[in-house]
Amino acid sequence: MHAVPPLEQEHDIAGATLAAAPAQATHEAPVRDLRRVPIHPDYWYPLAWSHEVKRGKTLGVTFAGDPIVLARTESGKVFALEDRCAHRQVPLHQGVVDGESIRCGYHGWTYDCSGKCIDVPYLGRERLPNGVRSYPCHEVEGLIFVFPGDAALAAQRPLPDFRSVSDPKYKTRRFGRPVKCHYSFMHENLMDMNHQFLHRRQMGRMRARSVGRRRGEGWVEVDYTFARMEGQQPFGEAIVFGQSRKAGGHNDKDVMTIRTEYPYQTLQIRNVEQTLVMDLWIVYVPLDREQRTNRTFGLLSIRKPGIPAVMNLAWPLLVWFTERIFKEDREIVEAEQRAHDSQGADWNHEVFPVINDLRALLRECGAPDRVVGAGTGDTAVIRFWDSRHGDPLAKT
Amino acid sequence: MHAVPPLEQEHDIAGATLAAAPAQATHEAPVRDLRRVPIHPDYWYPLAWSHEVKRGKTLGVTFAGDPIVLARTESGKVFALEDRCAHRQVPLHQGVVDGESIRCGYHGWTYDCSGKCIDVPYLGRERLPNGVRSYPCHEVEGLIFVFPGDAALAAQRPLPDFRSVSDPKYKTRRFGRPVKCHYSFMHENLMDMNHQFLHRRQMGRMRARSVGRRRGEGWVEVDYTFARMEGQQPFGEAIVFGQSRKAGGHNDKDVMTIRTEYPYQTLQIRNVEQTLVMDLWIVYVPLDREQRTNRTFGLLSIRKPGIPAVMNLAWPLLVWFTERIFKEDREIVEAEQRAHDSQGADWNHEVFPVINDLRALLRECGAPDRVVGAGTGDTAVIRFWDSRHGDPLAKT
Amino acid sequence: MHAVPPLEQEHDIAGATLAAAPAQATHEAPVRDLRRVPIHPDYWYPLAWSHEVKRGKTLGVTFAGDPIVLARTESGKVFALEDRCAHRQVPLHQGVVDGESIRCGYHGWTYDCSGKCIDVPYLGRERLPNGVRSYPCHEVEGLIFVFPGDAALAAQRPLPDFRSVSDPKYKTRRFGRPVKCHYSFMHENLMDMNHQFLHRRQMGRMRARSVGRRRGEGWVEVDYTFARMEGQQPFGEAIVFGQSRKAGGHNDKDVMTIRTEYPYQTLQIRNVEQTLVMDLWIVYVPLDREQRTNRTFGLLSIRKPGIPAVMNLAWPLLVWFTERIFKEDREIVEAEQRAHDSQGADWNHEVFPVINDLRALLRECGAPDRVVGAGTGDTAVIRFWDSRHGDPLAKT
Repeated sequence: MHAVPPLEQEHDIAGATLAAAPAQATHEAPVRDLRRVPIHPDYWYPLAWSHEVKRGKTLGVTFAGDPIVLARTESGKVFALEDRCAHRQVPLHQGVVDGESIRCGYHGWTYDCSGKCIDVPYLGRERLPNGVRSYPCHEVEGLIFVFPGDAALAAQRPLPDFRSVSDPKYKTRRFGRPVKCHYSFMHENLMDMNHQFLHRRQMGRMRARSVGRRRGEGWVEVDYTFARMEGQQPFGEAIVFGQSRKAGGHNDKDVMTIRTEYPYQTLQIRNVEQTLVMDLWIVYVPLDREQRTNRTFGLLSIRKPGIPAVMNLAWPLLVWFTERIFKEDREIVEAEQRAHDSQGADWNHEVFPVINDLRALLRECGAPDRVVGAGTGDTAVIRFWDSRHGDPLAKT
Repeated sequence: MHAVPPLEQEHDIAGATLAAAPAQATHEAPVRDLRRVPIHPDYWYPLAWSHEVKRGKTLGVTFAGDPIVLARTESGKVFALEDRCAHRQVPLHQGVVDGESIRCGYHGWTYDCSGKCIDVPYLGRERLPNGVRSYPCHEVEGLIFVFPGDAALAAQRPLPDFRSVSDPKYKTRRFGRPVKCHYSFMHENLMDMNHQFLHRRQMGRMRARSVGRRRGEGWVEVDYTFARMEGQQPFGEAIVFGQSRKAGGHNDKDVMTIRTEYPYQTLQIRNVEQTLVMDLWIVYVPLDREQRTNRTFGLLSIRKPGIPAVMNLAWPLLVWFTERIFKEDREIVEAEQRAHDSQGADWNHEVFPVINDLRALLRECGAPDRVVGAGTGDTAVIRFWDSRHGDPLAKT
Repeated sequence: MHAVPPLEQEHDIAGATLAAAPAQATHEAPVRDLRRVPIHPDYWYPLAWSHEVKRGKTLGVTFAGDPIVLARTESGKVFALEDRCAHRQVPLHQGVVDGESIRCGYHGWTYDCSGKCIDVPYLGRERLPNGVRSYPCHEVEGLIFVFPGDAALAAQRPLPDFRSVSDPKYKTRRFGRPVKCHYSFMHENLMDMNHQFLHRRQMGRMRARSVGRRRGEGWVEVDYTFARMEGQQPFGEAIVFGQSRKAGGHNDKDVMTIRTEYPYQTLQIRNVEQTLVMDLWIVYVPLDREQRTNRTFGLLSIRKPGIPAVMNLAWPLLVWFTERIFKEDREIVEAEQRAHDSQGADWNHEVFPVINDLRALLRECGAPDRVVGAGTGDTAVIRFWDSRHGDPLAKT
């Protein structure tokens, strides 16, 4: 019955082919509601595209509700601070970049790139208050990555590796936008290729076959091949695969591998010669404290064909094609989030073992629950990670 | 004092004429807040006009917060299901009507008109999950009626009887729209004809006289006659009554009877020959879970005059007249709801016995309270009526 | 650390010059969150400009969430009543002014200027219900003042004194608008002249020097002189001061005195001859129950120069200048309110003793906490001041 949210189905069925749901609901203890699992902050997350932070300018962003200001100094360096002045808590992104520091727009309190307060215009230098939290920050391939968790762990945690993006044999499209759902819906959407029905207008009718899945420490992945059920091969697909396939025939030469390596996701297509023809890297960064919205950052690299001009001609169509697909995905995952909001729990009945693997992974790798106090519109939040610069009132 | 909401005044004063409020507040136990009484689901409610559900299309509606999809099959039949896929809870109305069934737009799970799952494209037929709840559904006189409560009671509960609508001697106008208030405000608004002052711009100044009231099992009704205090008889009124009345004179020949027969309401005007000249049937269907909005469906039948062309000429004016009246009523009942929202309780001081009868009826006939869990924006609802198709994961 | 809101810093540092923050947080009991202190209702507050309430018309306003209707009778008198009909609680401002009384727009219940119900069209005069609360009301200098608290105290509480406004040697500009913040942010904004950095585009770079502060029963005040750090003297400033000052030089001849005399605030500038050249009176009236918005009413009087035409020519520029300054202040205090909303507490680290004096004053003079019940969107409010006309149902 729907009146009580069903227990999560974590059973798995052996074999590489698709399997049905178990016949009976299990009577185990309820598991965590996946849609309330906070993403783990001890990873590098992109919070903006490089071009969004101009020289001498600021940009206010958020990670899971924490306000963060990104600032690019006169010398071109980007740094990331807590986006509120230690004085009256107004956003620093409303302030002014001043050389290699940032000055609050209200009373002019000034912070360097480590968050240390270096000037209060009406106080002596010897009595400056401390400052604000700073975040480790790196620019990689046009993305500004910030480490929102325990800064002591930042150095040992690798940044993502963008091999195809930097390889001249590939052309890369950057895309993304805010999506109003928990990041877990995004992972499940991409990994479950049985949702081709959603894209029937773009893709025709295709059938995915799961031909293998693997699981390791911090990752799961699955391989698919595809059969076209009806309709013409769409243009975008032809660009990617570089070949035409007939309706009704099963294409078991091209293999698509989708992998969640926490917290990132990749989708790679290799052709029969094992050449990587498409390489997608994507991540879903929670924006609000409840993590019911995310900003998606995607890098889609396509291997250039023999005649490079073909790619340049086809590119606008590829852009259109991917935008349409992304829009359909966005609409359906937002419908999933709305259903969760109104049901107050995760009522999904997943029948596909790959997705149940993925769900277990996202639960295991996520952060512990945040303690959020209920109140009349106000929320008292106890942060479980906080490594800020120091007591803002302690003397330096 | 207003600081504490007054106890409801349920006293009644004998006699058919209007009576004043009692001199003292009573010290009885507080009664249920009428504005929080859920409408009883074990009745037939219209959820859409027939023309809103085209052949081969779906329409997503709600009854008191429960999402319901209406679908018209290729053969023209309408059916009603819970508007969420058993799989990932996305709305089925975003899906596709496929012959006599409906296919979810995400992964293509397919349900027949009884809610049974008849296809999951990537699962074998022998392992299909169950399905979703279905609702009894009937089309009558251009309205799609659904039985949202206990389906076992649907057959014994009569559909409304629309005698004038199907009678060629009458011309019927269908109207309605969403109104942001609890349904009880609508019943009280129509039944209390002392609110003619609200319509002074349309109606001139009229005075209603209550000339009789009756009460029975599941219904209350009241008779009125009217006197014109000042001003010209408006055009719309002249159409309805088919005669001209002078200012200052009391018209005790036409009698208006307003009746709430739970959950519907009617307003009928009979002339001195006891001919029914106007016959209104109306219902207010709660849309949201808190039942603070309703969608009104009204059928207003006017007896055609001797020369049929007169009616056709006058009809656009009648439409305009009724729209203006309805708009004024809508604005004032929405103001009542806002007052209730800000006061947090029902502070009404009703002095008119007919309305106190009506309020008692609506309380008695309403559903028991719903248990709604408080949370951070999420609501755990325990439904007290639930006769859905079966466990969605149990094997068929 | 920011994770726990810091205790308020109420320490003060002797001396008239600016002082830094204390080196250590104190371990005293937490003080009231200033941003939740309700303004005290036992004062006269302007709720509208006189021109907003036309003869024979009504205006619906609010004071801290309490709806109040202002009505101007045919004879020109203004009165103030609770803005809900005693009958069905709809706003009386949607009704009609009828001679010297107001008639509810729904069923026509009628109230005189004392709130007494003097007519219900369908009830006998001998059985009229009581009425609604009335508020003491006075018009002064184009403002409609209402006393929202205990009416018995109204006579002894003085109305503000507008000496410069009525003095022909001054020209007065009336301004104001709703601002989405607690009134306390407004007081602190105006009193802390170290926020000149915010207005750098209008004012150039100026430095304020606090040259004296005083505190008494119900008031605090501070004197400033100003030094121009760089840039030209702006036009608006030249009008006010009637003289040109060079960059870099400190002007210790003009003294600005800012005073909060609860609940009002004034800013006065006197030149070297002790002539009052500018005189601002301003108040911030809470609109909503949570007092997170206020409507600002300001009267800015400028002493006319020797040649009166100069003032008339400069006036449009002065208007533009003050509008720009006011807009910048509005944006920053709204950012402060948003920070408070998201942090759930007052994390301000005030280092300026004048402002800590002011904060203490606002806490001491404010009203006791309101008791607000939590619920599912509904709020049961127990009002601690309520001197309404009497029991609406008791017989007169």
